Amino acid sequence: MATNDVPDIVIGRLPIYLRALTLLQEAGQEITSSHELGDRLGIGSAQIRKDLSHFGEFGKQGTGYEISYLREQIAKILHVDRDWTVALVGFGDLGQAILHYGGFHRQGFHIEAIFDNDPEKIGQQIEGKTVRSLDNLAKVISAQNIRIAILAVPAGAAQEVANTLIEMGIKAILNYAPITLSVPGNIQVQYVDPVMHLQRMAYYLE
Amino acid sequence: MATNDVPDIVIGRLPIYLRALTLLQEAGQEITSSHELGDRLGIGSAQIRKDLSHFGEFGKQGTGYEISYLREQIAKILHVDRDWTVALVGFGDLGQAILHYGGFHRQGFHIEAIFDNDPEKIGQQIEGKTVRSLDNLAKVISAQNIRIAILAVPAGAAQEVANTLIEMGIKAILNYAPITLSVPGNIQVQYVDPVMHLQRMAYYLE
Repeated sequence: MATNDVPDIVIGRLPIYLRALTLLQEAGQEITSSHELGDRLGIGSAQIRKDLSHFGEFGKQGTGYEISYLREQIAKILHVDRDWTVALVGFGDLGQAILHYGGFHRQGFHIEAIFDNDPEKIGQQIEGKTVRSLDNLAKVISAQNIRIAILAVPAGAAQEVANTLIEMGIKAILNYAPITLSVPGNIQVQYVDPVMHLQRMAYYLE
Repeated sequence: MATNDVPDIVIGRLPIYLRALTLLQEAGQEITSSHELGDRLGIGSAQIRKDLSHFGEFGKQGTGYEISYLREQIAKILHVDRDWTVALVGFGDLGQAILHYGGFHRQGFHIEAIFDNDPEKIGQQIEGKTVRSLDNLAKVISAQNIRIAILAVPAGAAQEVANTLIEMGIKAILNYAPITLSVPGNIQVQYVDPVMHLQRMAYYLE
C-alpha cells in the first residue's frame, strides 16, 4: 500500500468515504457504486474512483463495490482497524464535553488519560480515569505509549502545552484551542473550530 | 465588494485570517504582513495577498496591513460584523455541550431557540431559554427571523429535521450529526465531526 506519495487531500476524503460506507452498511445495503457514493457526498464519481485507485482495486467495472470489504480496506489504510489510546489535555467545560461525547470511543479512539493543571481537578475520578497534573504527562504518555492528544486548554496555554506533548512523543494533536499551532513537519495537527464554520456560511447569508 | 465570483475555498480561508488577526490584536500588535500571517498559518504569503485582492486593497507594499482595519474589513466581508441569532436543534448530551460552549456567543452567534422532541426536555428552562417541541419550529424561526441552525440530533433523524428546517427558511446548517445531508444548492451546510479528523491523522501514524 502506498503511503507517502498519496496527496493529503485524498487522505482527507477517506474518512468521508468510510462514514458513508458505514451508514450504508448499517442500513443493510451490501453493494454500492462510485456514482451512489458521489451523489450522497457531493463528490464526483470519477474523483472517488481516482482516490481509491491510489490504494488498489476495490471493485469491478459494472458490479460496484462490496460495502463491507471496501469499508474494511479503507479502515486498514487509515490505521483505524485498531483501537487507539488518546490523551485529553485540559479538563474545563470543553474537555468535559469532549470526554462525554460518545463518538470518539465508539470509533475506536479511547480517552485513557486526562490532564489539567487546576489543583481542584487533579485527582478527580471520572469514568474510571484519574485527572492528573500536567507534570505527569511524560510518565503517562510513555507508559501507555500514547501517540494522539486532544488539546482543550485555553488559547494562551496551547502552544506551550503542544510543545511539551510533542517532546513527550505525541505525533498527532486534535486542537480545540482557537489558535494555529506551530509544530515540526512530522507532527499532525487538525483543528476543531465550529465558529469558523459558522463564519464561512455567514458570508453567503444576507 | 465582489461576492458570487469568489471561490468558496477562498471564503473558507477568511475565517482563518480573521482568527489570526484577532489573536495578534489581542497580543497588542498593530501591524502585520502577509509573510507574518503566512508563517503563522502555514499558508504562502502570495496566496494570502491573492485571496485578499478579491475584495480590495488592504495594505501598502512594504508597510504591511493595519491589523484592526483588516480585521474589521474581513468581518464585514463575512457578515460577522453583526450578531446572528441561531437555533439549536437537538438537546441531548451533544446539544447541551454546544449550548454551554462559550465560543459561539463570544463571536456573535447567539443560540436563542432550542428544540427537542423529548417530552421530558420540552418546557425546560436553560439560561433564560425554553426548550421547545419541534412542532414549534416554524413559528419560532419565522418570529425570530432565524437563518442559521445547529443540528445536533441523532443520525437517523438528521435528514428529516434538516428538510423541515430548510422549509421553514433556514439557510445555513452546522451539522453535528454523523451523516452527509442532501440539501438544495442555495443552502449552506458545514460539518463538525472530530472523529474524522482523528481518522485522517491516524493514517500518518504507525
